[in-house]
Amino acid sequence: MKTRVLSGLIMVPLVLILYFRGIPLVLAAFIVSAISVYELLKGLSKIGIMGNIFISWGSLIALYACHFIVPGRHDYLTFWLVLSVIASFLGIFNIEKHRIEDALATIFSIVYIEFFIFHIVLIDEGSYGVLVWMVGITAIFTDIFAYFTGYYFGKHKLCPKLSPKKTIEGAMGGILGAVLFSIVFGLIVKIEIFPHMIVLGILGSIMGQLGDLTASSFKRKMGIKDYGNIIPGHGGILDRFDSIIFTAPTVYYYIQLILQR
Amino acid sequence: MKTRVLSGLIMVPLVLILYFRGIPLVLAAFIVSAISVYELLKGLSKIGIMGNIFISWGSLIALYACHFIVPGRHDYLTFWLVLSVIASFLGIFNIEKHRIEDALATIFSIVYIEFFIFHIVLIDEGSYGVLVWMVGITAIFTDIFAYFTGYYFGKHKLCPKLSPKKTIEGAMGGILGAVLFSIVFGLIVKIEIFPHMIVLGILGSIMGQLGDLTASSFKRKMGIKDYGNIIPGHGGILDRFDSIIFTAPTVYYYIQLILQR
Repeated sequence: MKTRVLSGLIMVPLVLILYFRGIPLVLAAFIVSAISVYELLKGLSKIGIMGNIFISWGSLIALYACHFIVPGRHDYLTFWLVLSVIASFLGIFNIEKHRIEDALATIFSIVYIEFFIFHIVLIDEGSYGVLVWMVGITAIFTDIFAYFTGYYFGKHKLCPKLSPKKTIEGAMGGILGAVLFSIVFGLIVKIEIFPHMIVLGILGSIMGQLGDLTASSFKRKMGIKDYGNIIPGHGGILDRFDSIIFTAPTVYYYIQLILQR
Repeated sequence: MKTRVLSGLIMVPLVLILYFRGIPLVLAAFIVSAISVYELLKGLSKIGIMGNIFISWGSLIALYACHFIVPGRHDYLTFWLVLSVIASFLGIFNIEKHRIEDALATIFSIVYIEFFIFHIVLIDEGSYGVLVWMVGITAIFTDIFAYFTGYYFGKHKLCPKLSPKKTIEGAMGGILGAVLFSIVFGLIVKIEIFPHMIVLGILGSIMGQLGDLTASSFKRKMGIKDYGNIIPGHGGILDRFDSIIFTAPTVYYYIQLILQR
């Protein structure tokens, strides 16, 4: 349990970054993405799938360059995606050396990590930019509450094949924790959209847990326990951010489709 | 050569669809996508990669539903993409039965086929909608001219490992043919953006040939000659549309980034 709590504390720098937002947040998203694609492709290489890290990193640089060249516009996103996918295909033109899976792994790293995490930047740019906090709040408090609720009350397994320790009680506790702290955040910062904080807390928590389970299924398939060990004893960057990868688009599209209608 | 010419003639219904545009074009794009994802996943299954056709088709239906629900708006595209990718991941939650590659194949079919081809619909909706013709013109005349130029003048191989019959002379002839017919089209329809037709002809032809080579690399990796035999003697739908998959986004982003600035 000690490592779990400590590993939660490692999220503290995140709070500072969320406080300042803007450039520090964009930089953090960039660095987390750059390390995460490396960890993901390294994990895939363990089962013989060799994505191209240079195409993936090139694509990441192009994405953040677009952000700085045309700030506030989002219509470059699909263009960037088309070019990134085509670039990934070119990676297997060396036909004797590469397989289709290798190109698909590059696309995987670009879409699942770079594109998903970039939604943090998109939220920050928008008129509800302060809600970027909700990406972290739902992910972190789901994690902490799920752990403790599961530890003390956990009886019924959630999906033993994917993640044997998770329980339905833990999942419920996670949602409760996320909603609780979403409400606290709503009271402090954005009182006028208060009822939305409850919905967003529930959605964010569910998607965060789905992100966690998805990452577990990948790791199980790769035959690894953690993606890395960049934080000694606490796994890799991607292990810490697997929930955030899913909560970022959740918060963004909630703003786009519900709040900004 | 006879089959090649005949196979070109099969494109004739396409001309009618391009003439009417609107609903017939959207329907055609939908049907071509639905058959193509089936052919692609069937091809991948030959090398043991089992994408989920139902998730892929569900994603396709959702995409075209969005088009009809919020016509003229394109901001649903990234939302659709995020949900489609997450749905593809869920396909491997049955962890004992599926591999990571299987989820990646589903994403591959959604992005490479459904998302890329959908750019035809996006072009048609926009203010330069008539340029949707250019998607077909650059693909078809590149194909025909590359074939005949290569047949009569071809000496230097383009990339023998990917596609042994293609020559540099053929590729050049293809570009020439595309430019020629882009100019003809420009003269008939859109005289005011005439110089752009030359650039678009060149770009479309290069990207069309890249699309063709990309499809060749996939088929070579799958150990198949054609994706299907829906058109007897002329391969599958995907074999006919491999260039168009790449020319569609090319024309769309040329309009977005150059013409509509």
